[in-house]
Amino acid sequence: MRVIIIGTGLIGTSIALALHEHDAEVWLTDSDPAAARLAADLGAGDPLPETMESRADVAVIAVPPAAVAATLADAQARKLARCYTDVASVKQLPVAQAREHGCDLTRYVPGHPLAGREKHGPAAARADLFLGRTWALCPLPETSEVALEAVTVLVRACGAVPVRTEAAAHDRWVALISHAPHLVAAAMAARLEEAPGEALDLAGQGLRDVTRIAAGDPALWTQILAANAAPVAEVLAAVAADLAEAARVLADGDDPEKALVALLDRGQAGVARIPGKHGGAAREFAVVQVVIPDQPGELARLFHATGVAGVNIEDVRIEHSPGLPVGVAELYVRPGEAGPLLEALAAGGWPVRG
Amino acid sequence: MRVIIIGTGLIGTSIALALHEHDAEVWLTDSDPAAARLAADLGAGDPLPETMESRADVAVIAVPPAAVAATLADAQARKLARCYTDVASVKQLPVAQAREHGCDLTRYVPGHPLAGREKHGPAAARADLFLGRTWALCPLPETSEVALEAVTVLVRACGAVPVRTEAAAHDRWVALISHAPHLVAAAMAARLEEAPGEALDLAGQGLRDVTRIAAGDPALWTQILAANAAPVAEVLAAVAADLAEAARVLADGDDPEKALVALLDRGQAGVARIPGKHGGAAREFAVVQVVIPDQPGELARLFHATGVAGVNIEDVRIEHSPGLPVGVAELYVRPGEAGPLLEALAAGGWPVRG
Repeated sequence: MRVIIIGTGLIGTSIALALHEHDAEVWLTDSDPAAARLAADLGAGDPLPETMESRADVAVIAVPPAAVAATLADAQARKLARCYTDVASVKQLPVAQAREHGCDLTRYVPGHPLAGREKHGPAAARADLFLGRTWALCPLPETSEVALEAVTVLVRACGAVPVRTEAAAHDRWVALISHAPHLVAAAMAARLEEAPGEALDLAGQGLRDVTRIAAGDPALWTQILAANAAPVAEVLAAVAADLAEAARVLADGDDPEKALVALLDRGQAGVARIPGKHGGAAREFAVVQVVIPDQPGELARLFHATGVAGVNIEDVRIEHSPGLPVGVAELYVRPGEAGPLLEALAAGGWPVRG
Repeated sequence: MRVIIIGTGLIGTSIALALHEHDAEVWLTDSDPAAARLAADLGAGDPLPETMESRADVAVIAVPPAAVAATLADAQARKLARCYTDVASVKQLPVAQAREHGCDLTRYVPGHPLAGREKHGPAAARADLFLGRTWALCPLPETSEVALEAVTVLVRACGAVPVRTEAAAHDRWVALISHAPHLVAAAMAARLEEAPGEALDLAGQGLRDVTRIAAGDPALWTQILAANAAPVAEVLAAVAADLAEAARVLADGDDPEKALVALLDRGQAGVARIPGKHGGAAREFAVVQVVIPDQPGELARLFHATGVAGVNIEDVRIEHSPGLPVGVAELYVRPGEAGPLLEALAAGGWPVRG
């Protein structure tokens, strides 16, 4: 597959890395040449040359929502690819603007990978960002079967699960499962801005998880939210009403327990409906935890030991607390390799846990 | 160390497992004998005998908040230990009730480990639950230095970081960093209860993280929230007001961007203040990103280079994509040291980015 990535931010570069692993030919371009260069340095592909010998199979337009249509029109004018997709978190806006720009809609498959990180830019990109994640595809009435097929192959090559929907439905659903949660996380995190340091010293994992996505880029998210205003407003108003009522019964109620337990029960039931709630990586891989002394060289020593054991490490996360003498490395491996790795590391004296 | 765990749920059994790894002698008891037996079967310790030959060093009272004082009074009447601590998520309620019960407060160190899981019961316990997590200790004016020292040793043996505070302040801070976030997560998750399956099929990691803690036990959390009603109500009312205003500007505003970006900016600033692992680095550090070949020995070589540059690395995170030939190491350093480190690494041929 021959792919052009237009916009080498977090998402564009991650797609490039994932496709590169599948031996796709990938070219990179960005309005910020330094970002495209860094993505190329990371092994995501080659800089897009001034002129291509022939069209690419797919051009992925990985730019903010309001810039999609103009970028698509420009790419089509340059005949960069046989078909085009984008990754914007809203779909009705870029589709409407692409119509206004007179783009060739037969070659355009609006898309949206439901994956992201709280960081942005090419340095935060990861080839496994889409592994097991859903990726919405919203073909238009005009979209050709050939284009839809090509983009579906690309989505699968990234390890994602294509979910076909329609632009208006997409925007309504992501208001609930992505956009409103972003503002809810931001409103909770906003309470921390003026909080005393003593309070923040007590913060545990729960607070980190609830607020994590609020670290996202405010300018990008404002654009996304404004482009999906009505459905997001509806969800937020309902959440605000539940929280205001909880505050009221806690402050004034004679017997707050009944109202609270009803809200907590509904919350528990809601969480239970999220499919695969432990997340992509945990589903696909087994995790081996290793306690490591917090010293230079220990990680290298650990990876040497896993190499000797003949086990391929699919991913690694380091849990490290500043000032503590030890950290925990979480090694993600294929399920069948967890047992042998545990045995090999334990035999080598590493404190491990399956 | 000789320790008695009273209450072998998730927290009590996890403490027992952690201490057992440190060669402590641990005895287990629970109002539900099956729970204590299961904890013993898991290797957490031995069942508490009818009569002890001598007092334990510490008894850990790991029961729900409203049961702490009566359990403490009973344990002190039986002279089970030389000192006592508890793990309840609120502190003023058990302290006031312990006074009413006439407990010996010189031997009591109110405590609260900021760690948990969305599961409960001894089977969900993990020896590493407290690794690197904060653990509040709220000694009373009556609490002896000896008791505080013994409980501090226990907390450190669990791998946690003791944070000393005072009961009223503790309750105010956890309202902000734990109790209100729990209800916020529940109110967001409650919107999913009636959502169409198509919407939930699109769910990504962001939604999972925002709502994860809402899977906690509603009965226990209702008790915790009701025991800390006023401070929780205050935080919730503020979050509800921000969300209601966001809903209003999205639904009616001519120019919602300005109001939204202000809220998102405040949220981003709030997340940045959370110290430690996932929520972003403590504000006081600068980050230097280095592209590293994904081979054994490269990290050790990098740390050697930083040592030669004379720069102290406060924290490190490794961004690694499976199968990729390179990864990104993020080095957290004091702001004044970022410039010299960048120069030294660049001079040594490392691809760096400030």
